[in-house]
Amino acid sequence: MNAIKKVGLVGGGVIGAGWAARFLLNGSDVALFDPDPEIARKMEAVLGNARTAYAKLYPGLLPKEGTLSIVGTVAEAVTGADFIQESLPEREDLKIKVLAEIDRAARPDVIVGSSTSGLLPSRLQSGMARPERLVVGHPFNPVYLLPLVEICGGDKTSAETKQRAAEIYSAIGMYPLQVRKEIDGFIADRLLEALWREALWLVNDGIATTEEIDDAIRFGAGLRFSFMGTFLIYRVAGGEAGMRHFLAQFGPALKLPWTKLVAPELTDELVDKVAGQSDDQAAGKSIRELEALRDNCLVSVVKALSANGYGAGAASRAYAERLAAGLPSPGLIDEGQPLRLHRAQVEADWIDYNGHMTEHRYLQVFGDSTDALLRYVGASGDYVEGGYSYYTVESHLMHRDEGHEGDALEVTTQILGADPKRIRLFHTLLRSSDQVVLASAEQMLLHVDSKAGKACPARDPVINHVLDLAQAQAHLPVPAAAGRNIAALGD
Amino acid sequence: MNAIKKVGLVGGGVIGAGWAARFLLNGSDVALFDPDPEIARKMEAVLGNARTAYAKLYPGLLPKEGTLSIVGTVAEAVTGADFIQESLPEREDLKIKVLAEIDRAARPDVIVGSSTSGLLPSRLQSGMARPERLVVGHPFNPVYLLPLVEICGGDKTSAETKQRAAEIYSAIGMYPLQVRKEIDGFIADRLLEALWREALWLVNDGIATTEEIDDAIRFGAGLRFSFMGTFLIYRVAGGEAGMRHFLAQFGPALKLPWTKLVAPELTDELVDKVAGQSDDQAAGKSIRELEALRDNCLVSVVKALSANGYGAGAASRAYAERLAAGLPSPGLIDEGQPLRLHRAQVEADWIDYNGHMTEHRYLQVFGDSTDALLRYVGASGDYVEGGYSYYTVESHLMHRDEGHEGDALEVTTQILGADPKRIRLFHTLLRSSDQVVLASAEQMLLHVDSKAGKACPARDPVINHVLDLAQAQAHLPVPAAAGRNIAALGD
Repeated sequence: MNAIKKVGLVGGGVIGAGWAARFLLNGSDVALFDPDPEIARKMEAVLGNARTAYAKLYPGLLPKEGTLSIVGTVAEAVTGADFIQESLPEREDLKIKVLAEIDRAARPDVIVGSSTSGLLPSRLQSGMARPERLVVGHPFNPVYLLPLVEICGGDKTSAETKQRAAEIYSAIGMYPLQVRKEIDGFIADRLLEALWREALWLVNDGIATTEEIDDAIRFGAGLRFSFMGTFLIYRVAGGEAGMRHFLAQFGPALKLPWTKLVAPELTDELVDKVAGQSDDQAAGKSIRELEALRDNCLVSVVKALSANGYGAGAASRAYAERLAAGLPSPGLIDEGQPLRLHRAQVEADWIDYNGHMTEHRYLQVFGDSTDALLRYVGASGDYVEGGYSYYTVESHLMHRDEGHEGDALEVTTQILGADPKRIRLFHTLLRSSDQVVLASAEQMLLHVDSKAGKACPARDPVINHVLDLAQAQAHLPVPAAAGRNIAALGD
Repeated sequence: MNAIKKVGLVGGGVIGAGWAARFLLNGSDVALFDPDPEIARKMEAVLGNARTAYAKLYPGLLPKEGTLSIVGTVAEAVTGADFIQESLPEREDLKIKVLAEIDRAARPDVIVGSSTSGLLPSRLQSGMARPERLVVGHPFNPVYLLPLVEICGGDKTSAETKQRAAEIYSAIGMYPLQVRKEIDGFIADRLLEALWREALWLVNDGIATTEEIDDAIRFGAGLRFSFMGTFLIYRVAGGEAGMRHFLAQFGPALKLPWTKLVAPELTDELVDKVAGQSDDQAAGKSIRELEALRDNCLVSVVKALSANGYGAGAASRAYAERLAAGLPSPGLIDEGQPLRLHRAQVEADWIDYNGHMTEHRYLQVFGDSTDALLRYVGASGDYVEGGYSYYTVESHLMHRDEGHEGDALEVTTQILGADPKRIRLFHTLLRSSDQVVLASAEQMLLHVDSKAGKACPARDPVINHVLDLAQAQAHLPVPAAAGRNIAALGD
């Protein structure tokens, strides 16, 4: 999947640390240079956030995490790297100097990405002996969660570099957008800065506070922006008459005095005002708490869109399917013991009003475990596309203890029996930290011809794998909770 | 909940029809005037979309839908109305004239809201005999789903009008934002127009297509905008150093030539370019299909944020709880028959790779039904806050048939038995259209002292309601699927 074994990162601020987390969780080793004496602590905090988010988005799907090395020089970071990303402060002179230094130390065939949010790559590559390998790869914060990366080449950047950079960013779950013309601010930041400049004016002129401005976004258009952009939304707003009607109707408003034409001066007074209102808005929440809130919301939104198969959700789903296709490694599994095919983490939105993991989330974890088993025996993907599948016809759940937010969970799956048409299985849900059993589920799966809508024997090679697996586990004791019914009260 | 019995609406375009849908689904009767000969058909399409979305967001929670009357004059629409909303095209002269007409026909104490997205209320109220009752209530499309409504008064608008308008909009599930200074474009549209103007330049200059610009939003910052605005996101982006650091770091970029200073001329050529690219982007999808996609994504995003209790999700959850508190009406329920306390609809994101409702969603519907039962017997809200609750300790599910996207579902709940500590119940999940049983669930609930973490008898008045209910249903036959276990294969 991700062929980049070692990544060299130069600059470990919010953006650089985000890159490190994304590459590490995708299995690459990372060598990071940043002169900040607190870099190790700050890096660990970002990596912790990213691990939490990925455990929710891609439970059980990620490869073994790569190794992070914090190194003392730019040359150490980039020597031997298969890909390099520069995330220094936005100063053109500094970037030109360090990119030339990277260029001298890096293997000649390696691509160098720059995280600049608006500086021109033609100027950034001006001090490099191999300018053709420099490309802007502009990400968005948090880098480990937002898929967008704008790719922009300078005059001397090769087409191959732009293409290869897109492949590398795609491999780690991102959505590369090729910026076809070199322009200050690329695409996204031109749009965001237009909005930001107007927002600063509104604060400056006392029209609205930072919180009111944020509310004006997040309770309105911001909800739409998470899956459709300006143009598609306005097309729909035009109603049946479409885009031309919208332009005709709202074009005249472009002439109205709705926006200031230049940015306000960042006077001490304005900085105090913005920072003070921002403090009020945060209401005592630390940056770490706000980060966790942001990441939880992002994870939920991406998962919601994933279920709709649209926008960033479609990208996330495709990435998860790619990861799933490679896991688990069958050679490592002892089929004579209950299988361990699925892990999960109790998310904030799994908690009910009792403060516990809500009941249907248990069945979700069990269902995901059944899906993992079906992938394992080959009854997924092409097999399902080809018209065959297993359906769950019966489930019996026993609750033993309670899951709480943040608990790491794992499931063992015992095959109680199988015949050509059926699998009877028993899942046990454990809290990973102490291996306490939280719940169990016994399930009966029926193999079906999904077009005919009726049961039929499983096909090669699934049938053999299922029967072999049942045979291999036949010696295991039947769990006490298997075969139970719910007794009548008074019995 | 919603004390507005009759609403008068003037203007039934995309915005006016959205208002009609929101009020009707909240139980108000609506009289709508719009000269468009196709108004009835267009209105029904919007109302259909809104019904679908609300069935997902607020299943079983809504009051009886109000009655829509399409009337022939402004006076007919507003006579006898308890609240009036004007949603005419954005022409100041037209709005001033019609608002004066509304003012003459409406009851003197009734508030008149204007949907204008940027015209000044001081001018809009200039022809009214009672200008104090005119207030801007600027909504966002789709009005039935996006909670934001900007409230802005003119020179003559009374404080009471602004306060009362906020209460009315809140009652129908919206998030009112008081715009404290009267300004063209209010807050949200100043921000959105700044972005839109820059987006038009990017198309005009051939930097990016409408689709690329939309992607630059929806795969990046747009995901964040759905729950946090510009300022809070930038505060977090500043890292541990916070907002001041962010301003110091990114302030200089405000001086860079990242945005054009005025809007481009909407020449025929630019209109053709935008409309043509928008056609390409829509890839043959009709406005109706795009609307459905938009609404499905919005519903999913709001529900995702609701689970996090943040932003629009928190607003939606509070609204749902308010609706739930009023439903069902206990006097209408025959306790001697299985209870019908919960309805739902199979959503797009409930569908698995077999094209069926995925298994844990069945348990979600059953769990929601159990919650509805617990609300019905009083074991919710304050009771749970007070440290007592019922926990599900065992569930047995039987799958009979399959749910498909869009199916309306309902659940009947039979009490099989109860004692002071336990409820044994049996849910049957039916497809509403043909009353076919899709699945059943038998559950055992245990009453607990949640602080002590152990079982205890239920408290007054819950215990009496539970035992009475079990007694009232004791005559019902026990369903065949109750008391079953999963048999071993070969038995």
